[in-house]
Amino acid sequence: MKILIINPNTSESFTDKIRTNIQNYKLPTTNIIVKTASSGPESIESIYDELLSAQGTLEIALQNMNDCDGIVIACYSDHPTVYALREITDIPVLGIAESSMYLACMVGTQFSIVTTNREWESLLWDAVKHFGLADRCASVRSLGLPVLALENYSTEEIYSSILEIARKCVEVDNADVICLGCAGMTGFDKRISSELDVPVIDGVVSAVKLIEALDGYRIRTSKRLAYARPRYKNLIGLPPLFKNGYI
Amino acid sequence: MKILIINPNTSESFTDKIRTNIQNYKLPTTNIIVKTASSGPESIESIYDELLSAQGTLEIALQNMNDCDGIVIACYSDHPTVYALREITDIPVLGIAESSMYLACMVGTQFSIVTTNREWESLLWDAVKHFGLADRCASVRSLGLPVLALENYSTEEIYSSILEIARKCVEVDNADVICLGCAGMTGFDKRISSELDVPVIDGVVSAVKLIEALDGYRIRTSKRLAYARPRYKNLIGLPPLFKNGYI
Amino acid sequence: MKILIINPNTSESFTDKIRTNIQNYKLPTTNIIVKTASSGPESIESIYDELLSAQGTLEIALQNMNDCDGIVIACYSDHPTVYALREITDIPVLGIAESSMYLACMVGTQFSIVTTNREWESLLWDAVKHFGLADRCASVRSLGLPVLALENYSTEEIYSSILEIARKCVEVDNADVICLGCAGMTGFDKRISSELDVPVIDGVVSAVKLIEALDGYRIRTSKRLAYARPRYKNLIGLPPLFKNGYI
Amino acid sequence: MKILIINPNTSESFTDKIRTNIQNYKLPTTNIIVKTASSGPESIESIYDELLSAQGTLEIALQNMNDCDGIVIACYSDHPTVYALREITDIPVLGIAESSMYLACMVGTQFSIVTTNREWESLLWDAVKHFGLADRCASVRSLGLPVLALENYSTEEIYSSILEIARKCVEVDNADVICLGCAGMTGFDKRISSELDVPVIDGVVSAVKLIEALDGYRIRTSKRLAYARPRYKNLIGLPPLFKNGYI
Amino acid sequence: MKILIINPNTSESFTDKIRTNIQNYKLPTTNIIVKTASSGPESIESIYDELLSAQGTLEIALQNMNDCDGIVIACYSDHPTVYALREITDIPVLGIAESSMYLACMVGTQFSIVTTNREWESLLWDAVKHFGLADRCASVRSLGLPVLALENYSTEEIYSSILEIARKCVEVDNADVICLGCAGMTGFDKRISSELDVPVIDGVVSAVKLIEALDGYRIRTSKRLAYARPRYKNLIGLPPLFKNGYI
Amino acid sequence: MKILIINPNTSESFTDKIRTNIQNYKLPTTNIIVKTASSGPESIESIYDELLSAQGTLEIALQNMNDCDGIVIACYSDHPTVYALREITDIPVLGIAESSMYLACMVGTQFSIVTTNREWESLLWDAVKHFGLADRCASVRSLGLPVLALENYSTEEIYSSILEIARKCVEVDNADVICLGCAGMTGFDKRISSELDVPVIDGVVSAVKLIEALDGYRIRTSKRLAYARPRYKNLIGLPPLFKNGYI
Repeated sequence: MKILIINPNTSESFTDKIRTNIQNYKLPTTNIIVKTASSGPESIESIYDELLSAQGTLEIALQNMNDCDGIVIACYSDHPTVYALREITDIPVLGIAESSMYLACMVGTQFSIVTTNREWESLLWDAVKHFGLADRCASVRSLGLPVLALENYSTEEIYSSILEIARKCVEVDNADVICLGCAGMTGFDKRISSELDVPVIDGVVSAVKLIEALDGYRIRTSKRLAYARPRYKNLIGLPPLFKNGYI
Repeated sequence: MKILIINPNTSESFTDKIRTNIQNYKLPTTNIIVKTASSGPESIESIYDELLSAQGTLEIALQNMNDCDGIVIACYSDHPTVYALREITDIPVLGIAESSMYLACMVGTQFSIVTTNREWESLLWDAVKHFGLADRCASVRSLGLPVLALENYSTEEIYSSILEIARKCVEVDNADVICLGCAGMTGFDKRISSELDVPVIDGVVSAVKLIEALDGYRIRTSKRLAYARPRYKNLIGLPPLFKNGYI
Repeated sequence: MKILIINPNTSESFTDKIRTNIQNYKLPTTNIIVKTASSGPESIESIYDELLSAQGTLEIALQNMNDCDGIVIACYSDHPTVYALREITDIPVLGIAESSMYLACMVGTQFSIVTTNREWESLLWDAVKHFGLADRCASVRSLGLPVLALENYSTEEIYSSILEIARKCVEVDNADVICLGCAGMTGFDKRISSELDVPVIDGVVSAVKLIEALDGYRIRTSKRLAYARPRYKNLIGLPPLFKNGYI
Repeated sequence: MKILIINPNTSESFTDKIRTNIQNYKLPTTNIIVKTASSGPESIESIYDELLSAQGTLEIALQNMNDCDGIVIACYSDHPTVYALREITDIPVLGIAESSMYLACMVGTQFSIVTTNREWESLLWDAVKHFGLADRCASVRSLGLPVLALENYSTEEIYSSILEIARKCVEVDNADVICLGCAGMTGFDKRISSELDVPVIDGVVSAVKLIEALDGYRIRTSKRLAYARPRYKNLIGLPPLFKNGYI
Repeated sequence: MKILIINPNTSESFTDKIRTNIQNYKLPTTNIIVKTASSGPESIESIYDELLSAQGTLEIALQNMNDCDGIVIACYSDHPTVYALREITDIPVLGIAESSMYLACMVGTQFSIVTTNREWESLLWDAVKHFGLADRCASVRSLGLPVLALENYSTEEIYSSILEIARKCVEVDNADVICLGCAGMTGFDKRISSELDVPVIDGVVSAVKLIEALDGYRIRTSKRLAYARPRYKNLIGLPPLFKNGYI
Repeated sequence: MKILIINPNTSESFTDKIRTNIQNYKLPTTNIIVKTASSGPESIESIYDELLSAQGTLEIALQNMNDCDGIVIACYSDHPTVYALREITDIPVLGIAESSMYLACMVGTQFSIVTTNREWESLLWDAVKHFGLADRCASVRSLGLPVLALENYSTEEIYSSILEIARKCVEVDNADVICLGCAGMTGFDKRISSELDVPVIDGVVSAVKLIEALDGYRIRTSKRLAYARPRYKNLIGLPPLFKNGYI
């Protein structure tokens, strides 16, 4: 099978990190394509950023989706392109935030999310509620650092910072599982897990493993009701490719 | 004061209807500018449509916001540009769905929403929950008609159709207030209210009256935490105007 | 239009403060009448006080309501006379607590309430839940002072005390809007807002601005179902005026 | 022990019915005093009625409470005098609605409430939520009859009417316990229970049995925080008796 | 009447403590039989323990239930045998956790639970939610001690430890009632109550008083829907006594 | 990897059906062992049945768990042995109900569950709430047939019966995914999915695919807090094997 992972921000270094890390966990039979959004901001730290990333993300999806069996949107948020894509295709589409949370629910009672800049705390609580998982979330805590700091600080600095916050989630908030709340934290999961002795979950790996599971059971997105394919209508000022999303 | 109303779909007839109707209710001292999104789909019936309307809506806002005292996003949804704009400016920004619901809560115990195509039922329940108002919502019912049908059927046909569904909301679901769940339903409020003897609320009028209220009390959007202004970052493949959203 | 504000406690100094402050915010075309309950306790710090204030509040309303276009109950609580009045008239009736919370929801994601004596913490959480707004409330914190202390301490002492608690709401509880939880705090809003850089909301001003908005849109209280007018029945030991509430 | 039951409406026939029925269930060692509110409406069908009954109910309580070990407020609602009395005394005070619901939770999974006039449906849902029991309530259904109809129709007519609605609660709403939602329905419980083969619960009996239980375990109302005794303040235009409620 | 109390753990010292203490509170006409589960672990600190205690608890119930009027399961948990017994008999069956919480709701606004080992915090929150009482629970705090420590430490050590945690519940979490969250804490209730000046509630006493109340009102478990008696089916490898649970 | 599936009822025909069906979906590298509980009832239709199945289920797990990489409890319920096993081992343990629901959440907005006898409706709602997924569940509907009817009726009769109820879930309750709520319904998923054009999900397949996903990502059950390994204590009247569950 073939899974398309789209990094909705335009930072190639995030895309590369994701591409490398997923090799450790995918099935041998899974072919992974990782692509960067065709336009948009270099990092996503707000709804404004998220919306500016939407069109470039949909564009990559529209160009590639007929040729693949599942799509991962690799932004740790409730990225709205996940729902738009579920409407326009029936192959499974997963966001990395929801994926990490579902996995967390299978191995613990309450998860916490460790994210980057403080604005994400509020946005991720909204996401948790939207997924219907508020009863399972112990806390959302942030490093107080911009997303791109993950590129600018040393690996050890970032590691220590994540570890410190994750420890508070366990010791203060009683979380028994940690979700790493940014695609840029890829690769820290196993090390923090050893240190804290709780499962630590990366969203991109989660999403890939869950799409493999859905594919293995031959389950696709429901096309009735909420995710029904949208009807064609005139589009003004947009590339013709976007017409392909409609019936 | 000056209020900018943006119609996020590219249907000028909706924009015109809104422009005409609001004259009946605005304060004499309020100057209303109604504009259509600069790009996007002709109607919004799905998340896919909504995302395709986002960039063109933000563009109009960025071009006009320094010159106005409040912005209304005239799509009956939880349109994400509302939050993006709250991040990038401190003048009040209101969506028409939330505005109608807050007004409804002031004059009744439980509101229902009458919307257009069936997919909106699920999307508007999500919106209601996101606003934190699920306890106050009796039901969301749809006409089972595409949004653009509001243009294609006769006024009397549309009126009868809305009336029939609104009556079910009152008689079956025990709603004591009705919210008209589409900007294209503008102008039907008072007539249906007379017929059913419950308040019937239009979102665009609600949003304008609430922004006038906020302005009269000199209250602006909070810029701490969730709506903090986003930090500048490189934008790829987007018009330079979008840089203006950042600090 | 004409708005009747009733102060349900019998402290004239509160009534005066409200009368003065509202002049800063009302529309030029709005005529404001502020009256004190005809009987009851000097301040309201408990349900017992609240009930002792009810009859005197209803009395003032019954004497004046045919001559006005909206009523504000100026006690920061879920004062039951709000609902009784919605039953017996169709002009808009708003409590100041709900009014401040609705405004807060329009300019922030989560509000906190700063109240007076500690017993109000529990009562105001009940109010928040009753309004259906628990998802939007970050915290309720009290000064630990009786209501009448607002009269007995110096303005600066009260100001510092409110500021300190409001700061905790923002810094510890992550509120991005503050509601001033007592009619006696009238006039502190703008000063605390400057200091903390978040919107700070006074309930009386909120209620007046919202009734102006409802009036401008010509929306009145629903008279179907919950707020249907009560049927006449014999009253024993009560002034005949109370018969006027019934059909 | 001695339990004071106060009927907050001024209908002596209700008081008599309660007095007679409770003899079947009270402990031999329990002394029951049933009294009618000293002023107020003949029946309670709205918040307006409820507030007009409050002062006359508190008056009876203040006159008698030092001499008894528990108080029952015999109105099937979230009558605010329950909370006022919990503030001013430490003997147990129970409303009949909450009492019936707690008992229902002990013998079934989901209860329904059968009430009188339609306005009570909304008020009793509010009550259920306030008690924190919404998860246990299957439905609230009304007979569509004014409270005083319970006096005017024949016993058989009332019985049939309650039975029909209670049956819908079981068969349509999946309730496995029925609460009789009006003090005037006293005496129908066992007969409807036989017919429908589910427990049917009368609020007055429930409250008396629960106060006996609390008394037997020597548990009284908490006087810390929410139910702390209110501080003395000037009362204007009220009988001096009401001063006794304060410290 | 006759009430059977079953201690589901096999620690006779717990059984003895319960037997002694209940004499202080039961009605003179109530005959109490206290029995220990016929098999299982010496204490219950996990779901694993709970399940190992189930068969021995059901065995005692099956042997004795035809001869009694109510059953108490004396483990402070959401012990599943409570529901199994409600299915197979119609006499009232109460767990001690739910019983203490219902009583707590009658004399306060928010209760806290003080339990033994830390794992119970999560299990008791689950229980609170299952009973539908999450809105009424301020906190669950544990002593951080295994259950059997209640036997091994001196009474004064245990007392001090419970007192310290209960004080935090009141002072930090704003609880106005305390529930003692372990059958082994029997006998500490009144002393801690005196010290903290809030009601402190023992589950076994609560359950007995509530079953007396239900019995006095002649209310039994609903046998429709959820608690319908299970149909007979082959049992493999189990004592024939268990067949008696089926129709 | 090796996955142990335990059928907690003692009906070998269910075990066989599960064993056959899973071959269609497991990874080639997965070795599946399906075993029947060593004691207990022939079907599980109540909490009483569930508890009688617990010891025999744990016994099989204790005998086999050291030799496998994941355990599936193949009863469509919130079977308590899932939690007991999570306590005593760190390999992933999944129930089939939760597994089907997590998968459903990935491909739709709201799932419905189609179960067997009516008593399961209430029990499965409890399960849904316990998993924290109530916001995602449209309805639980039952066939009104005992579990063993799945063996006694013809395949076509059972198919028609499930199809009819599943159709109501989609058309009346607006579910866009169906979960088959009994292990005995194994094998009907794809056929009903074709007919109704929504995903239809089998719990056993879901659990196996999710354990494969967890294993592929090398994630195991959290051993901190709720699922900490229980401490050793004396066991009375139980096979010595059960000691192996303790530290």
